[in-house]
Amino acid sequence: MHDISEYPSIEADVIVVGAGFAGITAARELKLAGKSVALLEARDRLGGRSYSKPIGDGKVAELGCEFYGQPGTISHRAAQSLGIETAKVYDTGYRLIDDDGKISPWKGMAPKVSAATLLDFGQAALRIERMRREVPQDAPWEAPHAKQWDSETMWSWTRRNVRTRGGRNLMRLMIEAGMAAAPADVSLLHVLNYSNGTGGFRAMTQITGGTLENRFVGGSQNLAMKMAEPVLADTYLNAEVRTIKHSGDRVRISGPGFEAAGRFVVVAVPVPLAGRIEYDPPLPEHRDHVSQRLTMGAAIKYLALYDEPFWRAEGFTGHVISHASPVRATVDSCPPDGTPGVLTGFVTGPAARQVAKLPVGERRALVLRELERFFGPKAAKPYDLLEQNWMAEPYTRGCYHAYAPPGLYTTYGTFLKQPVGRIHWAGAESVPHEYGSMSGAIYSGRRVATEIVGRETGEEPATPLRPSTTALSVEEPAR
Amino acid sequence: MHDISEYPSIEADVIVVGAGFAGITAARELKLAGKSVALLEARDRLGGRSYSKPIGDGKVAELGCEFYGQPGTISHRAAQSLGIETAKVYDTGYRLIDDDGKISPWKGMAPKVSAATLLDFGQAALRIERMRREVPQDAPWEAPHAKQWDSETMWSWTRRNVRTRGGRNLMRLMIEAGMAAAPADVSLLHVLNYSNGTGGFRAMTQITGGTLENRFVGGSQNLAMKMAEPVLADTYLNAEVRTIKHSGDRVRISGPGFEAAGRFVVVAVPVPLAGRIEYDPPLPEHRDHVSQRLTMGAAIKYLALYDEPFWRAEGFTGHVISHASPVRATVDSCPPDGTPGVLTGFVTGPAARQVAKLPVGERRALVLRELERFFGPKAAKPYDLLEQNWMAEPYTRGCYHAYAPPGLYTTYGTFLKQPVGRIHWAGAESVPHEYGSMSGAIYSGRRVATEIVGRETGEEPATPLRPSTTALSVEEPAR
Repeated sequence: MHDISEYPSIEADVIVVGAGFAGITAARELKLAGKSVALLEARDRLGGRSYSKPIGDGKVAELGCEFYGQPGTISHRAAQSLGIETAKVYDTGYRLIDDDGKISPWKGMAPKVSAATLLDFGQAALRIERMRREVPQDAPWEAPHAKQWDSETMWSWTRRNVRTRGGRNLMRLMIEAGMAAAPADVSLLHVLNYSNGTGGFRAMTQITGGTLENRFVGGSQNLAMKMAEPVLADTYLNAEVRTIKHSGDRVRISGPGFEAAGRFVVVAVPVPLAGRIEYDPPLPEHRDHVSQRLTMGAAIKYLALYDEPFWRAEGFTGHVISHASPVRATVDSCPPDGTPGVLTGFVTGPAARQVAKLPVGERRALVLRELERFFGPKAAKPYDLLEQNWMAEPYTRGCYHAYAPPGLYTTYGTFLKQPVGRIHWAGAESVPHEYGSMSGAIYSGRRVATEIVGRETGEEPATPLRPSTTALSVEEPAR
Repeated sequence: MHDISEYPSIEADVIVVGAGFAGITAARELKLAGKSVALLEARDRLGGRSYSKPIGDGKVAELGCEFYGQPGTISHRAAQSLGIETAKVYDTGYRLIDDDGKISPWKGMAPKVSAATLLDFGQAALRIERMRREVPQDAPWEAPHAKQWDSETMWSWTRRNVRTRGGRNLMRLMIEAGMAAAPADVSLLHVLNYSNGTGGFRAMTQITGGTLENRFVGGSQNLAMKMAEPVLADTYLNAEVRTIKHSGDRVRISGPGFEAAGRFVVVAVPVPLAGRIEYDPPLPEHRDHVSQRLTMGAAIKYLALYDEPFWRAEGFTGHVISHASPVRATVDSCPPDGTPGVLTGFVTGPAARQVAKLPVGERRALVLRELERFFGPKAAKPYDLLEQNWMAEPYTRGCYHAYAPPGLYTTYGTFLKQPVGRIHWAGAESVPHEYGSMSGAIYSGRRVATEIVGRETGEEPATPLRPSTTALSVEEPAR
């Protein structure tokens, strides 16, 4: 890896902007295909939203993306091929549900709430399961009811389909903890597509059988670093890209103190941030409006470190869900050998927006108070409490991922990945497939490498700067 | 006015970024209050979204904002004080409504549609009128039902409250022609607030008694230019601001080839574009997420120029509304003496997004075909057809204004105007008051001047860089 300050002028076949999973994969695959690449990263580290902090003894605490679902997913296979071990998240004992301050332990399939709540929520969840199966994984906007489902928020759907207060609270919790956005923020169609990527709606917040089931030993960032090994000599840190000039045959990328030129550029940063780069000529309006509309979720991650995972000895999994606490969920994030004890607290959605406004002392006190309420006095005294506010990170500006508000998918969905001239788009949000996840990011990196190799070998025609259609179909509203 | 290329280094009390109505007003008011100012404009002209093209004989065609509602509104009073005349938009004769290809003339209060449609739409419009009266003009997020109304799209509200196909078509037309966004895009609360600014929901698309009633003789841009006269010597064109460095006592603004320094900066560009400037230190997350979420509307304005307004002689006002045509509305935009004949066609919302993808020849043919369908063969042969696609303008990126998707107002509404350190925000979208209009922009310019003068004289305490609250109120959902 190099510091960009020593390389004012770079030339490569393909310039890749952003060294998260998507950019790393794109650079790696392009290099393996024989292209020369330059991977530009604004930060002084690789990994993007994967960010593992050493906590001694070669162990790490995950400040960023951490979990994945079932074996067989793309990130899992990438890890396997690089000899990186994986481990199950601890899920033995009682989980807790915090229902308006009443904390109840539960085991099995359903949290301990009233039968009416369970029935109400269960029916709605089943309805969502049926709907999501009608949504094509690679083109959610082509679902039979896409227009209708993209015209309302998850909140208004919930209001019609969930009648009990308890059921609505559970539904809200699912979206806020699972997607780091409020039900009022997101398009129903987006929720359906996202649940397709997680393998089901309920899976969004589950450990066993859900998206929180597995982790990478040594940290997600370590996987990113290992994947980057073939392109480390082509990687430049502290390279903040500000402008992209593009023409029929060349791209010229520049930032403070450097210029990079090539035949193609891969932009692999979060979509809202991709919109902040200056393009010359300017992007066509449909792509510009995609970046105006996609919005990063709101999440602050807290990691409380203890000498040992005391909750395990007391019979708890460490997994809490709460619709009313600013800490919407906790998970046991201990290293595989169980030492030290690590509790992860997710402050997400509306709660994250509120908590972020507090001074740091109040934020920490608040989180510790909630952990104590869940797990007793020991929880209030971690030997360290780490905080990562992804909304404040200038090179990410939110987590877990960008969500789609109503109306985006069905008007501009296809433009999430459609190249603009010699600019190709990668990133966890550039794919409907496993949207917003590590796997989605890796998948997009491979796709974009294939796109570019295909164009270079003439397998695919070059995309015109301004896509044009021959037939006009002014949209009809859903009725 | 100067070209920035001759002024690499500028110093003033207040640097104003963007010379639309908001920035011009801010600079003007600050100068009148004794401050030194520098007004930086990225374009080679003043006026922002007001853009008047000379068409001979001292007359203009309005490529940008053109109309305002009742006398007494802020822009009208500004014009009066500068001796600029105003004129009524032509509204004599029959209007046309295009209902799925069936074109019917109408006069009076209600377009010629079925009684069932009229009743259905009328009841819904009344309901909206009642709701909007509960929305405070300066803080819509404080309405009693704000949370609920901000949690759904205009589309889902319409689906519940309008039963007939015709009624839904009219409702969709109102939003698309009146706000340049689809009902699926916008928060119900935003629609209510916007209708407060236009003086009522139905007023949004009306000439007499509505927001299309009046124009400025000589063009809206002429009003902007006249307002700018006291600060012309302080105005720098071709000054594209890329970075704003700010500290406890100074701001440093820079762009290609120039630097400007001062005690305060006023950012008076559309909110989504304000988010593309690089800030050092970075903006707090709540302000950043405001700019991630607000989205510019979709509008292409066409102006067809004829030797004379032939439609008048045939008994038509020139005003058409259509829910299905890509040309959602037309208005008679002739100069006050009626020569030449000018028909304005509004291609807005989903239609604008589709039409923008067509090659220029197809776009023009399509619009002329529609004008011919409305007004007969003469309409197909203008001596000129002007097109202004505001989505493609890199320094605007959409029109008429930025709309609020669900969830924005009630989480971040107060941050639309709250200063960040020494950065103050102006613009048609920085006020709930007369949101998105010329008046709103002027109002915001005055507000921001008052804010800064107040801080300089110690009347108001400086705003901390990171606002903090002492009490935490994690939001509760609307039920």
